[in-house]
Formats: sequence, C-alpha cells, structure tokens
Amino acid sequence: MDLTSLADIHEARSRILRHIHQTPVLTSRTLNEQLGLELFFKCENFQRVGAFKFRGAYNAILATPQKDLANGVATHSSGNHAQALSLAARISGIDATIVMPSDATLVKRRAVEGYGAKIILCEPTLESREQTLQSVIGSSGAHAVHPYDDNHVIAGQGTAAIELLEAIPSLDSIIAPVGGGGLLAGTAVAASTCVPPINVIGAEPAVADDAYRSLAVGKLIPIGGTTTIADGLRTSLGKRNFRLLQRHNVTISTVTEESIVRAMRLVWERMKIIIEPSAAVTLAAVMEKPHEIPGRRLGLIFSGGNVDLDKLPWQ
Amino acid sequence: MDLTSLADIHEARSRILRHIHQTPVLTSRTLNEQLGLELFFKCENFQRVGAFKFRGAYNAILATPQKDLANGVATHSSGNHAQALSLAARISGIDATIVMPSDATLVKRRAVEGYGAKIILCEPTLESREQTLQSVIGSSGAHAVHPYDDNHVIAGQGTAAIELLEAIPSLDSIIAPVGGGGLLAGTAVAASTCVPPINVIGAEPAVADDAYRSLAVGKLIPIGGTTTIADGLRTSLGKRNFRLLQRHNVTISTVTEESIVRAMRLVWERMKIIIEPSAAVTLAAVMEKPHEIPGRRLGLIFSGGNVDLDKLPWQ
Repeated sequence: MDLTSLADIHEARSRILRHIHQTPVLTSRTLNEQLGLELFFKCENFQRVGAFKFRGAYNAILATPQKDLANGVATHSSGNHAQALSLAARISGIDATIVMPSDATLVKRRAVEGYGAKIILCEPTLESREQTLQSVIGSSGAHAVHPYDDNHVIAGQGTAAIELLEAIPSLDSIIAPVGGGGLLAGTAVAASTCVPPINVIGAEPAVADDAYRSLAVGKLIPIGGTTTIADGLRTSLGKRNFRLLQRHNVTISTVTEESIVRAMRLVWERMKIIIEPSAAVTLAAVMEKPHEIPGRRLGLIFSGGNVDLDKLPWQ
Repeated sequence: MDLTSLADIHEARSRILRHIHQTPVLTSRTLNEQLGLELFFKCENFQRVGAFKFRGAYNAILATPQKDLANGVATHSSGNHAQALSLAARISGIDATIVMPSDATLVKRRAVEGYGAKIILCEPTLESREQTLQSVIGSSGAHAVHPYDDNHVIAGQGTAAIELLEAIPSLDSIIAPVGGGGLLAGTAVAASTCVPPINVIGAEPAVADDAYRSLAVGKLIPIGGTTTIADGLRTSLGKRNFRLLQRHNVTISTVTEESIVRAMRLVWERMKIIIEPSAAVTLAAVMEKPHEIPGRRLGLIFSGGNVDLDKLPWQ
C-alpha cells in the first residue's frame, strides 16, 4: 500500500491554496502563565466549514480525474467531513451525497444541507455507515471520498501542520486529535523531516481509545460503541492512518471526558474562540497528561469549531 | 470643559502600546454573502481582560501623576471596566477597589478578584454606584477613574478605532456600541479627520435608548431602569461623551433584544468567536436597521467577549 509522503502534502497545498483559509496561530498569555508552557494553537476552527476537513476533502476532489467525478461524490461522515465534501463539491460544480449517522448534531446536518448536498441518514455504527454508502455508490455511480483512510485526504489534512511549522519554528511537540487518523497521520508526515525532530502526539478520548490500543499491540483494533462527547472522534482508526502513525513513531495520550469539557470551557472563557470537544482533546492532553507531552513549546491543532449551541457540555 | 482631541488619542496610543493587544480585524465570507456587505470586525473581545476597556483604564492610570496614585485607584463598573482597571492597577503596582452592582455576572466578579482587586457590592442603580464609590474614595483616598466620563478614558478607547482605520482604509461607516459613551466618543474623535468623511454610528439597545433620546432633543436624558441583555450598556451616557457625540455628528441606531441575541448567535456559529451581547448590538444594527447605516464597507467594533457560559441568552 502506498502511503502519503511529504511530497504529497506539498502537492496538496499547491492544489488547495486558493480556496482554503490560511488560519491563524493564536497564543494565550493566560493559558501560558497558568500552565507554565508556550502553547501555539493552529486555529482550524476558523477554516472554511469550521474544520480542517475542508483541506482533505477539497484535495481529494482536485486530485481525482474529471471523468471519475461525472456522477458526483459521496461519503459517510459524522459531521465535519460531510460539510467539507459538500462545500468542496459545490465549489467544483459537482453533486455530493452524504451518509450521516442519525446522532449527528443538528447544526452539522443543517450546514450540509446549506451547501446543497443530499443527506441519507443511517444507524450510528461503522457497519451501517459503510453499507449505506456502498448502496449509494452502487445506485448513483458517485465517486467515494473516504473521510480519513485516503492518501489525498491525509495529504490535505497535513497542510495544516505545514502551515503551523512554518509559522512557529522550533516546536518541541505537536498535538493533534485522533479519530479516524487523517489529521494525525498528515501531521506526522508533515513533521517527519523536522530537524531537530518533533514529537507528534495524538490526543484521544479514553472512552474511544482504539488508536492507543492499536499502537500498543501493533495491530488495528476497531473501536466499540462509544459516546464520547468528542463526536468527531467516534470513528475507528483507518488502515493507512495506522501504518503512518507506526512509521512515524506517533504516541497517543488519552484523556477523560471531564478533561475535554474543562479544556473546552477554558478556551471559550479565556481565548474567546469557539472550539468543539474534538479540538479540546489536545489541550486536555496537555493539562491531564503533561508528563506524556515532551518540551515547553507545544503546537496544538484546534481541529474545528462546530458546536450545537443548544447543547453545550457544561449544561 | 476640555474635550478629548485626536492628539489625546495618539498620546494614549503611545502610552499604552506596550501592554495592549493589537487586536485583529476579522472578516466573514458567510456574513458578507448573507448581508451583501463588506464587514470588518475589530475584535476587542481578544483584548486583555476580554474587552476594549483595558485601553482607557490603563491610559487613565498612566496619565495620572504618580503622587495621586499613592492610595490606589477606585471605580464603579458593571463589569469590563472593573476588570480593566484591576489589571491596569496590578501592572502599575497599585491597589484597586471596585464598586460593582449586585447583578454583575459571576464570571466578571471572579475575573476582578483574579486580578487582585477588592470588590464592594452595591445596588444596581447609578445612584447607589456613585454614592458607594464616593464613600470608598472618602475613606481610602483612592484616585477615582470614571468608567467613561473621563478624557483619558475616552482617549484610550479611541485607540481601537485608530487601529481599525489604519488596517482598513476607505470605510463608509464605523459602528460602535454605546452605553456610557466612552468607546463611541473615542471612535468619533478618531474618525473625525478622515477624508472622505466616515459616518460614525452608535448601536444601542432600544430598551436603553438614552443616547438616542438625548441626541434627539439636544439634552442629556438619563436612562431609567433597564434590563437589556447587553449588560455593558445599562449605564447612562456621560456628559463629556454626549458633547463629543454632538460635536462629531454621531447618529444612533436602536435595536431590539431579539436582534441582539440573533446577531450574537450568528457570530458564534459562523465566525467561531465569542462576543458578548454588548458587542453584538453593532451587527444587530446592521441587520435590523440597514437603511440607517450608510455604505457597503462597514467597520464594527466588537467591544468584548465576557459572557457567563452558564447563562446564555438563547437557553
């Protein structure tokens, strides 16, 4: 299996540059003082569709031959990849069909509809998602864009870390959330040629710790059912993503649900920016497992900011 | 009465430059498309203490002779000026005593305590606030820093508009919230020498429309009791502020409480930044009273982002 390379990420960057936001890297004096660290937050919550996912989805469409896109694109997604593919398809002038689990937040469903995509609901299990997607593809002839287990998607997601590393040299560690592993694998590839080397750490909810367990035993262990508040991280690690994490010596820090909510609220209160629980796992790891995050200068990828404002986790 | 001049604002800027944040000017593709306008948001929610108030409070301390500060500073404030003066005092190595109305949000009280200031609670009326402050000053000898009716405070607040005008030339209108009028008066002075001239508009809750009524009849009319959700705008327009608004032909647009909540939520959802209701009045005015806001290129001052996350207005 060919795996995503640094060259793929640079190619992705040239492809998508015109339509993505160069998101800012923010800092917080208060958080730095409170934690005794230098934190640099790559704010993909400000990315188009409110999440890094637009990078990978758009790169996947641009890298696919035009003739394969005649019947549009389709995918399954718990939310942000759905919005991302929908917008990328609209920009590219093609149709998009999105298979979404029935427990996806309303704000995400509305956003997908707003981009003109067609939604097909399924049960909130990986099996149901994949079966439903297969039947959509079978009947429509649409081109499938997997949310994370796809070289072009991984390459696109890696562009966020490239931008962070260019903006802030000499980081000690870089921390990204891990669900399916597209962002984390892309980040690992992006950071792989840094001198001196940078530690790449995946932050994962303890109740959805399939990446942690898979790397520990050296074998992909699919996730069971999980209700982590980090709804973007409820998916199992992909095959390509797993191999890339192994190849680049990525480690995983797991965090409690309480830590995720505390970190999320701290960012809202102190930084005045909206991040979703899946983004807050990175800061949660820094706060809950400081001994697992080497160094003082840490880059954190705030992966998204799509939250249902009627259902906040501290209510 | 001497009134704040453009020179005062430039002096203030030199004084406070080292300790304030140069806050970003953000734009939103979604909002621009939705409203058919070009909006530029000066994000003072990212200012230290989460509000523009730090500019004025810090300038007031720096402009006061050292000997007058021997017994510290004191003020009354519904929240953001309290935090601002507390932090400015701490940076300057002097004591601060803050008279706060008993209905000030908990998050604001905690923040003031966090900066090491002493809080004295009073009834939520202007009379009680001023009487309590007088008694504090009488017993402690502290130097009073009025939250808005003060030339140095107005000059400090005007620095936000100076930064906005430098970053985004050729605005048609600039909109700032109006409560006591420090920010709006400072903005009017800052914009007063623009060529071509810029419309300066105050955005005010309709249930706290003392600035609107005062300018209409040419005479200061104090506010009655009000329960506007924009808790930073519950104060009456100050004397100096009123005269400056008259001098610089500022107009006022009033907005409903529903508009304020809708605008606030739209910014949270689409821009992924946290603004407080008092900041959202600016966008509410653009959305509710577009005919009162001339031009297409509009600068809005998002004055602050201090919100009690346990009491959101759409709950």
